[in-house]
Formats: sequence, structure tokens, C-alpha cells
Amino acid sequence: MLNLDDYMISIPDFPEPGIIFRDITGILHDADAFHEAIDQMAEKVKDLEFDKVIGAESRGFILGSPIAYKLNKPFVLIRKKGKLPRKTISTKYDLEYGSAEIEMHADAIEPGQKVLLVDDLLATGGTLKASADLIERAGGIVTGIVVLVELAGLKGRDKLDKYRMDSCIVYSGK
Amino acid sequence: MLNLDDYMISIPDFPEPGIIFRDITGILHDADAFHEAIDQMAEKVKDLEFDKVIGAESRGFILGSPIAYKLNKPFVLIRKKGKLPRKTISTKYDLEYGSAEIEMHADAIEPGQKVLLVDDLLATGGTLKASADLIERAGGIVTGIVVLVELAGLKGRDKLDKYRMDSCIVYSGK
Repeated sequence: MLNLDDYMISIPDFPEPGIIFRDITGILHDADAFHEAIDQMAEKVKDLEFDKVIGAESRGFILGSPIAYKLNKPFVLIRKKGKLPRKTISTKYDLEYGSAEIEMHADAIEPGQKVLLVDDLLATGGTLKASADLIERAGGIVTGIVVLVELAGLKGRDKLDKYRMDSCIVYSGK
Repeated sequence: MLNLDDYMISIPDFPEPGIIFRDITGILHDADAFHEAIDQMAEKVKDLEFDKVIGAESRGFILGSPIAYKLNKPFVLIRKKGKLPRKTISTKYDLEYGSAEIEMHADAIEPGQKVLLVDDLLATGGTLKASADLIERAGGIVTGIVVLVELAGLKGRDKLDKYRMDSCIVYSGK
């Protein structure tokens, strides 16, 4: 089994001073590491039952879509406001500066359906929390969340403590 | 073999009057159709040799990433300006209104490497042309482009006529 951490790239002071950006493109750029990342994420959730995989624009698409493909599940998009062409449900949430609004097609989930939520990275958990809220408002059940990278120092887990959360690479800092 | 066209959803007058939006979420929301779409796209390019798969933010990620996974290739991101944390090369291109700038990590492609470019939909071909330019400026060779849906009436093929272009679903109109 590859050590995925070896392929991560850490960039100090991006996008602003004091922040270390954890860049997954080192994994994506290596065929074996990329394949292994998808397989490890799928392995983490192999005991879970779910009907759909959901990822949020745009980095949630990068890992969510191949996991859905590998596990033979549908893939549902959560997108930024205004990009989905049919009837949607949407939610607004606060960012560090300002706010964001995301939406999902209203017919994407049927009431009672179980959902696996996928993202590349768990930081403060804002987008994942907003995504989970959206899924629940549509009547879906978030049966688990899986991310490739977790920044444990930002305590995103606390915001999402009612969900099962799996991650492959954990950094203790922020 | 599923007829993928049966799963497409056509929305008149989105995002503006006179435009028919061809929505692939009907395919994504069906496990078999989604799996078949990835398999058909991969099948279209099975005679091609390439080192990397590249998709542009954000809809290029949805299909590009699982194709890379399936074919055991690296997946390279082209992103909107300002989102990639390391040294990039970028290109500006014209949209119907205004312009857009996209970029790629400078180390994403080594000179002489062959690239398969993936997107969901070929319309006027602006983003695909800008992506191909970026790949070539990095020293890469675009060995093929594959899209799920082609709007033949918009003649995006003409703009990209120096490349091999494959598509799975073709609409004759705009």
C-alpha cells in the first residue's frame, strides 16, 4: 500500500500568510497514488450502505465522481448558485469573509435515500456541513462522509459530529 | 449497451431565451447510465496512447477524473485563475461576454508527454481550445479530446480541427 502522505505537497503562506495549503495535485499527478487514493477512500466506507455519492463543486467532483464510478453508484452534483438548469433547493452559509450559496437539483435525492458525501479535504467543515444540510432538507440521509485529507487542528469534525467521518491522511495542525 | 441519449434532459431557454441546455445530470443520477458513459468515453479512445488525462474546472472534473481512474492514468486539473497554489502557466480567452482565465500547475506536464483532454460537452469549443493551448505551451501533445455530448450546430469541431475529437452523444442543433 502506498503512503499517500508522501505525495502530498505542502505550500506555506497560501492563499494567505500563516496558512499551509495542503495540495492534493501531487497525488493526482501520479497514476498509482491517484488510483490508491480512490481505492483507500472506497475501502474506508465499505461497511456503509448508500444509494448515491454526492460531491460539491468543484473539488468534491475530483474524488467523488471516481468513487461513484468504482462503487457503481449514481453521482449527484452540489453546485454553486445559478449553474444547475432545473428546479433546485439551495442553502447559504458563512465563509470566513462573506457567504456562499450552493444548490442541488430538487429531484437528485428521493426521501429516505442514503448518501455518501465526498470531498478532498476537511478544513473547518463549512461546505460539508452546508452540503449535509441540503441533503437532509431534500429528505436524504447522510450515511457517511469521506475525505482524502483532514486538517484536524481546524476541528471540522466537531461541526459534523453527528456524522460518521472517515479520512485517509490526517494533519494535526491547521 | 444503454442508449445514453435516453438519460439526457433538455431544458429550453436556459440560461437564456433561445438556448437549449443539455443537462447530463440525468445520466449522472442513474448508476448504470453513469457507468456506461465513462465506459463509452474510455472505449472511444482505446486506440490512443497518452500519459495523462486532463479536465478543466469544473465540469471537466466530473468525467475526466473517473476516466483517469479507469485507465490508470494521472489526472491533471486546469482551474480558474488563482486557485492553484504552486507555480502555474495560464491563458486568457474570450467568452461570449467578457473573458476567462484558466491555469495549470507548471509541473503538471513534462515536455513531450501525451495528453487526453476530457470535457462533458463540446459547444463552441472555447474552453477546450484554451485548454489545448495551455497544454501545448507546457510542451504537451494533445493526442485526443473526448466529450460526452457534442452540440454539432455550434461548430466547436471547426475550432479544434487539428485534434482528434470523439463524442458519445451528438445533437445536430445548437
